[in-house]
Amino acid sequence: MSTNGIVTLLTDFGLDDAYVGAMKGAIVTVNPHASVIDMTHGVRAFAILQGAFLLDSAWRSFPNGTVHVAVVDPGVGSDRKAVAMRAADHYFVGPDNGLFTFLSEPISECVELPIPPEAAPTFHGRDVFGPIAARLTLGASLAELGIPQHGEPMRLPEAWASKVGEAWRANVLHCDHFGNVITNLPIRALARIKAVNGARVRTVETYEEAQANELVALVGSSGRIEFAFRQASAAARLHLGPGDSLVVT
Amino acid sequence: MSTNGIVTLLTDFGLDDAYVGAMKGAIVTVNPHASVIDMTHGVRAFAILQGAFLLDSAWRSFPNGTVHVAVVDPGVGSDRKAVAMRAADHYFVGPDNGLFTFLSEPISECVELPIPPEAAPTFHGRDVFGPIAARLTLGASLAELGIPQHGEPMRLPEAWASKVGEAWRANVLHCDHFGNVITNLPIRALARIKAVNGARVRTVETYEEAQANELVALVGSSGRIEFAFRQASAAARLHLGPGDSLVVT
Amino acid sequence: MSTNGIVTLLTDFGLDDAYVGAMKGAIVTVNPHASVIDMTHGVRAFAILQGAFLLDSAWRSFPNGTVHVAVVDPGVGSDRKAVAMRAADHYFVGPDNGLFTFLSEPISECVELPIPPEAAPTFHGRDVFGPIAARLTLGASLAELGIPQHGEPMRLPEAWASKVGEAWRANVLHCDHFGNVITNLPIRALARIKAVNGARVRTVETYEEAQANELVALVGSSGRIEFAFRQASAAARLHLGPGDSLVVT
Repeated sequence: MSTNGIVTLLTDFGLDDAYVGAMKGAIVTVNPHASVIDMTHGVRAFAILQGAFLLDSAWRSFPNGTVHVAVVDPGVGSDRKAVAMRAADHYFVGPDNGLFTFLSEPISECVELPIPPEAAPTFHGRDVFGPIAARLTLGASLAELGIPQHGEPMRLPEAWASKVGEAWRANVLHCDHFGNVITNLPIRALARIKAVNGARVRTVETYEEAQANELVALVGSSGRIEFAFRQASAAARLHLGPGDSLVVT
Repeated sequence: MSTNGIVTLLTDFGLDDAYVGAMKGAIVTVNPHASVIDMTHGVRAFAILQGAFLLDSAWRSFPNGTVHVAVVDPGVGSDRKAVAMRAADHYFVGPDNGLFTFLSEPISECVELPIPPEAAPTFHGRDVFGPIAARLTLGASLAELGIPQHGEPMRLPEAWASKVGEAWRANVLHCDHFGNVITNLPIRALARIKAVNGARVRTVETYEEAQANELVALVGSSGRIEFAFRQASAAARLHLGPGDSLVVT
Repeated sequence: MSTNGIVTLLTDFGLDDAYVGAMKGAIVTVNPHASVIDMTHGVRAFAILQGAFLLDSAWRSFPNGTVHVAVVDPGVGSDRKAVAMRAADHYFVGPDNGLFTFLSEPISECVELPIPPEAAPTFHGRDVFGPIAARLTLGASLAELGIPQHGEPMRLPEAWASKVGEAWRANVLHCDHFGNVITNLPIRALARIKAVNGARVRTVETYEEAQANELVALVGSSGRIEFAFRQASAAARLHLGPGDSLVVT
């Protein structure tokens, strides 16, 4: 599968610095014809699991041959590995720290990327991952870019909810712009949800079914179980944010 | 008039989720050569009138043949219609809920869009409006995409200020990044403005004419009457936000 | 040196208005094939020095022939000049108010831009600077666009730290998304830094070397001396923002 010239970016850099701009500059310096699309730069600083969720929720909307760069990297400058891999005819580039936890498709090929000595230790997004993505769009093979690896990318154990007796112990993956609380509960848990952290919940199919001030659970557009109020923020009312734990009964 | 390959996006999705990224992915999956440009994703959640104003303030800056997608959609999942239309050789795609209120140019053609059964009820931006826009850029005609409609898009009655005796009852359409309060007052009201919600105002031609701490009214770059302080936020000082009502004397 | 079709944008417009969208529309109206890349729109309103720093930190990541548009313009509507220039085979367009303070490369060519009478006095980004940049990408020469100037762009005197006895009197150029406080101290000051505004500091090479709750100084990815905590915000803990002054001993 060859690349299609599209590079997506997902980082915790925010948009108020020029880091994202500099990373795009590094990409178009290698390939002026690359088409760079922002997935999001709003991952909470250092929140790897949230970044893993956001990547997982969006990359399948892109065509085969897209290169996805993800950089949420609290360990930059330490000895965490940098990787590039191919799965389901998409390419993924970033630190091997759990960002690719939700990649359930078989990994066709994976390489460990060398860190060039001139790369700024504090800025691998611009100096390492951006240029690697750009070289992929120019037709470089993974084998040309790094050292072949066996095995799987690193997976974060907290990425999946667990059953404790009759209850689920779950985590908040993300709270979206509308205040919907997106969780790592398995879909099969939906039918029996009665309460979250002690608050009563009703399961519905669309946000519209919720009554005013009624907390509901539904499967949202990302294919995950969300807690929501109709036109109000469940995150604010339940005081929840990414990484928070949930007890669901 | 054929399309020019440019698709603009205006939504209330914010930039901290991957919704905008997924919508762009859906567009480039249909047409990898589409050029997608963000108008803004900072519309307040569910604020249709603010979205209508922001769309109105910017679409004429684009060349003929541009496709403008607008998604502020509190009624998603309900029975509001989805439309695509052409006016002034531009194309407009989105829910028919008032977002196109300020489109004063004659509507050359309008179709109602079918909602595919596989579209996520909670995510029509990605699953309906993005792909429709992309198909337009590939040369599809409106008649191929939906069912021809007669009549006008839905208009929000609160979009225009009204005269109550000698006073104007107006609304805040938007408060910009600099704190300028943009209103729906007609331009002809400018000459006689003396006060807004009881605060004294002087009319000027440019922000520079305002004295320190002096509230002024002027016609801003969007062609609307704005209330402003010189290098300070009128929105903050007057405690105003989108949708708030104004009494102007 | 000819242009490469890439236009970068750096403004204090924020992303919640449609100003940036309208500016991009003005660019693609002149050249539909221009590739517009956001450097950042998160410069604090009217903060020229912060804008100058962010531009300086990122433009060299782009290839030769790129056109950089910078608009932070508290004096719009007054008599400040508008300029376009070439340095190090890059092009720079914007108000001549200090935004190009850190451009240390020799200026090969500089022109003063005419302000067209129809330009909205409140929106030179869209009506002046965007179209000029687009005409550059189409091959216009600087001499075709304005009146040749001699001399240098305006430089802000507060852009450089000064020695007062044994201490440095410095300024905060920018606080990044991770809370790192980026300063205008010269690199040679690094070895002898003991304290900033009375708080003890240790100099290190990477963020990883910092202990928990230890304030460190290092040279960051922008090539400037930064003050930082490991995975915490130095800006928040030291109550510092762009433009604040520092006494460094």
